[in-house]
Amino acid sequence: LRLPCFGLSVADLEATTAWYIEKLGFERDYAYQVPPLQARVAFLRLGDFRVELFEVRGAAPSPESTKTPATGLGVIGLKHVALAVADIEAARDHLRARGLEFITDVANVPASRKERYAFFRDNNGILIELFEPDGGSAG
Amino acid sequence: LRLPCFGLSVADLEATTAWYIEKLGFERDYAYQVPPLQARVAFLRLGDFRVELFEVRGAAPSPESTKTPATGLGVIGLKHVALAVADIEAARDHLRARGLEFITDVANVPASRKERYAFFRDNNGILIELFEPDGGSAG
Repeated sequence: LRLPCFGLSVADLEATTAWYIEKLGFERDYAYQVPPLQARVAFLRLGDFRVELFEVRGAAPSPESTKTPATGLGVIGLKHVALAVADIEAARDHLRARGLEFITDVANVPASRKERYAFFRDNNGILIELFEPDGGSAG
Repeated sequence: LRLPCFGLSVADLEATTAWYIEKLGFERDYAYQVPPLQARVAFLRLGDFRVELFEVRGAAPSPESTKTPATGLGVIGLKHVALAVADIEAARDHLRARGLEFITDVANVPASRKERYAFFRDNNGILIELFEPDGGSAG
C-alpha cells in the first residue's frame, strides 16, 4: 500500500489546475467528466503521487472552520494532507517567492525535536502541510 | 516531494487506532498531546506513509454529506485520500474478510479502462478510496 492521491472539490478547475502547476510544480495528467454529478475532473501529477480535482456545479463554499488547523480539528473528518520536504525552510522560502503565504511558522511536532511542519492553504482555502521528517529525508 | 501523511480528526483515539491497525495493517508510531487544543494525537505508520489522528475534546460529528463521494463533492474542500493496491479485487476481498463494508462497487475511472477504484469508510465515516493504478503497479 502507498498513498497515491488525494481528492479535492474545488471552485474553479482551471484556476486550481494553474495554482497547483505554478506553485507546487504539478503537471497535468488527464481529465474526464462525470455527467451524473455535473462534474469535471482533472488528475494532476507530481512525481509518484497525484491530486484529483473535482469541479461540481453549484458546490458550496468550504466552511470557514476548515481553514485553520485548530478550528478544522473541531469537526470530525479528513483535515489536511502533508507533503514531505528535505529542508522545510528552503521549501517555505521557495513557495513564498512564488507568492504563497504560510499561516503558521515552522514548528516542531511537540513530541519530537526532529520533525517539523508548517501550514499553508491552496487557492481554495484547503489546508496543506509541509513536513520535514526526522533526519530531513524526503524520499 | 512526496505525500507522507494525512491528518484526521476522530471521535475516539483508541478506537480509531485499533481500527487502522486491525483493518489496514498500520502500526503505532508515536503519540503526543497538544494542551492548548485539548488534543491527543497519535501517528500510525504503514510502510513509508502515516496517518495522524487527532482527538479534540468536544469535536462535532462529521456532516452526513461528507460520507458519500457524490454528496461530499458538493462542498469545496479536501474530500478523500486514496491507497494504491496492485489488485483491487484481492484487496477488497481481504478487507471484507476483516468486516469492512464497501460503499461502491469496483469501477473504472471514466476516462480510463485501466484504472479502477472502490470506496469504503473508516470507523469515523471518513472516505477512503482503494485505487488500482494503470497496470496495477502499487509501488
